[in-house]
Amino acid sequence: MEWFEESYGNFALKIRIKEVLVDLRTDYQRIQVFQTCDFGKMLVLDGKIQLTEKDEAFYHEMLVHVPMFEHRNPEKVLIIGGGDGGSLREVLKHGVEDAVLVEIDEEVVNISKKILKIDEGAFQDDRVSIHIEDGIEFVRESKERFDVLIVDGTDPNQYSRSLMSREFYERCKKICDVFVTQSQSPFAQKEYFMQILKNAREVMEARVYTGFVPTYPSGFWSYVISSQIFSSLDVIRERFEKRGVKTRYYNPEIHVASFSLPEWLKKEIVSY
Amino acid sequence: MEWFEESYGNFALKIRIKEVLVDLRTDYQRIQVFQTCDFGKMLVLDGKIQLTEKDEAFYHEMLVHVPMFEHRNPEKVLIIGGGDGGSLREVLKHGVEDAVLVEIDEEVVNISKKILKIDEGAFQDDRVSIHIEDGIEFVRESKERFDVLIVDGTDPNQYSRSLMSREFYERCKKICDVFVTQSQSPFAQKEYFMQILKNAREVMEARVYTGFVPTYPSGFWSYVISSQIFSSLDVIRERFEKRGVKTRYYNPEIHVASFSLPEWLKKEIVSY
Repeated sequence: MEWFEESYGNFALKIRIKEVLVDLRTDYQRIQVFQTCDFGKMLVLDGKIQLTEKDEAFYHEMLVHVPMFEHRNPEKVLIIGGGDGGSLREVLKHGVEDAVLVEIDEEVVNISKKILKIDEGAFQDDRVSIHIEDGIEFVRESKERFDVLIVDGTDPNQYSRSLMSREFYERCKKICDVFVTQSQSPFAQKEYFMQILKNAREVMEARVYTGFVPTYPSGFWSYVISSQIFSSLDVIRERFEKRGVKTRYYNPEIHVASFSLPEWLKKEIVSY
Repeated sequence: MEWFEESYGNFALKIRIKEVLVDLRTDYQRIQVFQTCDFGKMLVLDGKIQLTEKDEAFYHEMLVHVPMFEHRNPEKVLIIGGGDGGSLREVLKHGVEDAVLVEIDEEVVNISKKILKIDEGAFQDDRVSIHIEDGIEFVRESKERFDVLIVDGTDPNQYSRSLMSREFYERCKKICDVFVTQSQSPFAQKEYFMQILKNAREVMEARVYTGFVPTYPSGFWSYVISSQIFSSLDVIRERFEKRGVKTRYYNPEIHVASFSLPEWLKKEIVSY
């Protein structure tokens, strides 16, 4: 048995693997899927862990349900990235009418359908349309409006870096009511986090919430959200019960609690 | 430059080190102190990271300030373990009259005084008394009562294991108003966590709260607390301002938010 290792500068996470299920290069990236000992299947893009079966719900549920429950009635949803189908699966739990997923790398979708299967049938759902193209282009050209827009991008690279630009956020803001993007680890990847927050704040009022994802750098993950109003716990609870959403990590109390930030993070956000 | 590695079964954390500052064996354990590249000095006991300068406050502040602010007026405080002085430093911020620290291994205190220095002078404070003895014995024999009792033990081993026994918790409960113990990672060390919670609940009403400590297994850490009443955010805020406590991680919002648990953890706690 071997170990997979992902290092972030001067610290690293290691996960013991049983088997390599996929290892290929596309035009965009290297895609690997491993069978791990304790974390189920694991998707790795360009050497960075994207998800494991054991904790992917911690990430996808916080990315999706916080904006979806902040919206009174999300019917039309756009996901940029998220080719593994995890975010799509969570979006469909809200009884939406129309879910659009825009993924640049078709192979991620193919491998997810064939091997990961965390979409749990979402790719086959009648309400879903999948576009294989650059999210930047899609958003630039789109004539449609969305109730919720979710950016589920990878770690910044040559392609995904533009998903953290001011221009992209500006266009996103124009075509949706509630916007959310994952925003890396404020502890382990402070520069990326600050850049995302800064760029978003130049074009929208944005707030930060956090959650725990053990297989991401440092385990402490963040999200940047923009919404016209933020709801009370009572309102979120009512929507949660009405929509009958079943979760592994998310609940209305965690939703509200996730906006309380540690003192050091509050100070960094204020002082940038 | 080398790497220090701590594995927890099938996953592991690695931290790059510059220099070994201490490496010795006492009657109780192996004590190592490293100078790391990114995390400052790091204390390791029996191969397990106890603290790094960079994130020790995340742990010590959540362990100490939650029980201390749940108490209306903590004057007398007992710390079991905590020989590094981090918890003691935080306790003294509350203007207590009497702080007792009971550490089994004198060398931990000596090395902390000489090399780590995270106590920031707390060991020299007039209000502090230090007892080098087994915490179990101290609690069994004590004729005193304490406003707050804090168990700051290491990962379970031959000596610290009794700090998670029903008998120990029963005696603790009798001599204090507010009780807290660190309770390991519910994600990475579920069995230890459940054992601590189960044993505590046999003798007291106990609640769980959580916090983020990046250099502990999985980054997701937990604490078990028992108090006659739990205060509202307004009350905690008022006490926080009145006592003028300065923090790096803790604040009243995080205090209240830390009791909101992910769905999977809520279910495990209810179903054990």
